[in-house]
Amino acid sequence: MAEEISRERADYLAEAFCSEFVDFCRIRPGTIRRGYLESSLEVGPIHLQQDGVVHAGVISTMADHSAGYATFTVIPEDFQLLTVEYKINFFRPVRGEMLLCRSRVVKEGMRILVAESEVYERMEGEEAFAAKATVTLTAVYKEKMPESLRSAAE
Amino acid sequence: MAEEISRERADYLAEAFCSEFVDFCRIRPGTIRRGYLESSLEVGPIHLQQDGVVHAGVISTMADHSAGYATFTVIPEDFQLLTVEYKINFFRPVRGEMLLCRSRVVKEGMRILVAESEVYERMEGEEAFAAKATVTLTAVYKEKMPESLRSAAE
Amino acid sequence: MAEEISRERADYLAEAFCSEFVDFCRIRPGTIRRGYLESSLEVGPIHLQQDGVVHAGVISTMADHSAGYATFTVIPEDFQLLTVEYKINFFRPVRGEMLLCRSRVVKEGMRILVAESEVYERMEGEEAFAAKATVTLTAVYKEKMPESLRSAAE
Amino acid sequence: MAEEISRERADYLAEAFCSEFVDFCRIRPGTIRRGYLESSLEVGPIHLQQDGVVHAGVISTMADHSAGYATFTVIPEDFQLLTVEYKINFFRPVRGEMLLCRSRVVKEGMRILVAESEVYERMEGEEAFAAKATVTLTAVYKEKMPESLRSAAE
Repeated sequence: MAEEISRERADYLAEAFCSEFVDFCRIRPGTIRRGYLESSLEVGPIHLQQDGVVHAGVISTMADHSAGYATFTVIPEDFQLLTVEYKINFFRPVRGEMLLCRSRVVKEGMRILVAESEVYERMEGEEAFAAKATVTLTAVYKEKMPESLRSAAE
Repeated sequence: MAEEISRERADYLAEAFCSEFVDFCRIRPGTIRRGYLESSLEVGPIHLQQDGVVHAGVISTMADHSAGYATFTVIPEDFQLLTVEYKINFFRPVRGEMLLCRSRVVKEGMRILVAESEVYERMEGEEAFAAKATVTLTAVYKEKMPESLRSAAE
Repeated sequence: MAEEISRERADYLAEAFCSEFVDFCRIRPGTIRRGYLESSLEVGPIHLQQDGVVHAGVISTMADHSAGYATFTVIPEDFQLLTVEYKINFFRPVRGEMLLCRSRVVKEGMRILVAESEVYERMEGEEAFAAKATVTLTAVYKEKMPESLRSAAE
Repeated sequence: MAEEISRERADYLAEAFCSEFVDFCRIRPGTIRRGYLESSLEVGPIHLQQDGVVHAGVISTMADHSAGYATFTVIPEDFQLLTVEYKINFFRPVRGEMLLCRSRVVKEGMRILVAESEVYERMEGEEAFAAKATVTLTAVYKEKMPESLRSAAE
C-alpha cells in the first residue's frame, strides 16, 4: 500500500544507525525497507556478563535501536523519533556466536508509533528465539527539536 | 524486618557488578544494602547517539543491571538470577554529565521477584528524573545453573 | 509547586470516573488531589475467576482507570486523555474483601504523561501489596477529539 | 512438532474459560488448539467508558484471559497458571460492534511462559488492529496450589 523508501533514504538511515554507542556495541544494520529493518552483532568478550552469557543490556540496545530505525522508514524525513518506552522479554540465556534482530512497525502514526523486535541467537548454524521487545515511539518535527524535545519530554 | 547483608556479601556483589559489558559502559556500583542499590555513570562520548543525547541502551543497561544487583541482596548466596523481562519509560532526552540509578526490590520471592530502577541525570548540580524501569526476575539454584537455565528458559 | 485542583474539578472527575464499565466493576473513586487519586472496590462473586481468586482483569481495570483519572488532574480541562499503553505486575493471588488503588502521576507533559498505580488487598484489617502498574497516556485537545483520536491512533 | 490437544481438553478449557468475571464481560471462547486460542465479544453499553469508547479494561481482560487459556493448552493438565505480568499497547479508540482476540504462545516452559494477544475490532465487516499484549505466566503444580501460590507470590 505505502511505497518503498528511496535508496538514498535507506543509505542515510544505515549510516545514521551506527552512532557512537551502537558502534561501540558492534551492532550492524542489514536489510532495510519500509517498516522493517534487520541488524546483526558478532558476539565478543565485551558483550558478556560475569557468567559468560550475553548481557541483557546488549540485547536490549539492539532491540530498541533496530525498532527505532525500522520506524524511521515510515515517517517524513524532517521528523525525529523519541523512544517513549519499551518492554522486553528474555526467553533464554544467550551464549551464541551471533545475534540477529528483526524489527517491524506494527502501528504507524505521528504522535504514537509502535514497533516490535525479535532477537535470535545463531549457534552452529541453528537459530533460537532469544528475546522480544515492543517499543513505543513519538515523532517530533526536526526544526523544533530542541524545543519539542523539551515540550515532549518535560 | 529482614536483617542487613554482610560486609562480605556487599563487597562480593560490588565486584561481581562490574562484568565485561557493564565495565565497558562504565557503570559503577555505589551504596548497597538489603533490597537497595545505587549506581552511577559519568557520561562520555561513547554513551551518545547521533544527536548528542545519551543512548536509551545505556540507560536501560544501567536500570536493568542495577535492579538485578539490588535483587541479589535478598536471595540466598547459592542462587543465581535471570531477568525474565523489563519495561522502561523514558521521561526526557538525557544530556547531563552524570547518571544516577536507584534500584529497589518491590516484591521478594524465589520464583518471581520484582525490582524498580529510577534513573536521574545530574547537570550543573541539579537532578532530573530521566527514566523508570520495572524488572521481573527469577532465582535459580546455582548448582543447577546449566540445567536450570535450560529448564527455565527453554 | 503546582496549585491544587478546584473543588468543582474534583467533583466533576469523581462523577465522570464512574462510567458504565467501571460502575459495572463497582470501582469507586476516593481521595482526589492534584496528581493523585485513590479508588476502592468491594470484592464480590462477579470479580472472581474459576479458582475463587479476583480476576486480573478487575485489578487491571482499576489500576488503569485510576491512573487515568489521577492524570486528568494535571491537564487543562479542555483536554481529553488516551491510554497509550500500560504494564502491570501481579504480586499475589487476591482473595481479600476489598481492593484499594493509589495512583500517582510520575511524569507530566502534554504529549506523553506517565502515572503509576499500586493496588492493595485488605483482608481482616491487614493490607497486602497485590499489583503495580505503569501507565503511559497522551493528552488530546477535546474540540479536536473525533479527528485527533483518529490522527493520534491511526 | 508437539501433538494437538485432545477434544476433551479443548472442551474442558472452553468451559473453564467462562468464569464469573469473564462471563460478566461477555467474552466467549472460539477456536482452540495447541498454543492458540481465539475469543470474541459483542460490544454493548456495559463495555463503554464516558465518551462512548470501549473501556481499556475490557480489552485488557480479553487479551490477558485469552493469552492465559492459549497457554493452558501447552502445559500438563495437573498444572495451574498464574499471570506474572503483562503489557498492552492500545492502537485506536474502539467503537466497533465486535472484538476479536487471537492469542499465541511464543515461549513455552514451566517456570516462565510467554503469550501474545492481538485484539481487533470489527465494524461494518472490516477488521482493524486495536491492541496488542504480551503476557508472562508461570505454571504451578495444582496439588500444591494453595502453598505454591503462596511461595510463588509472596
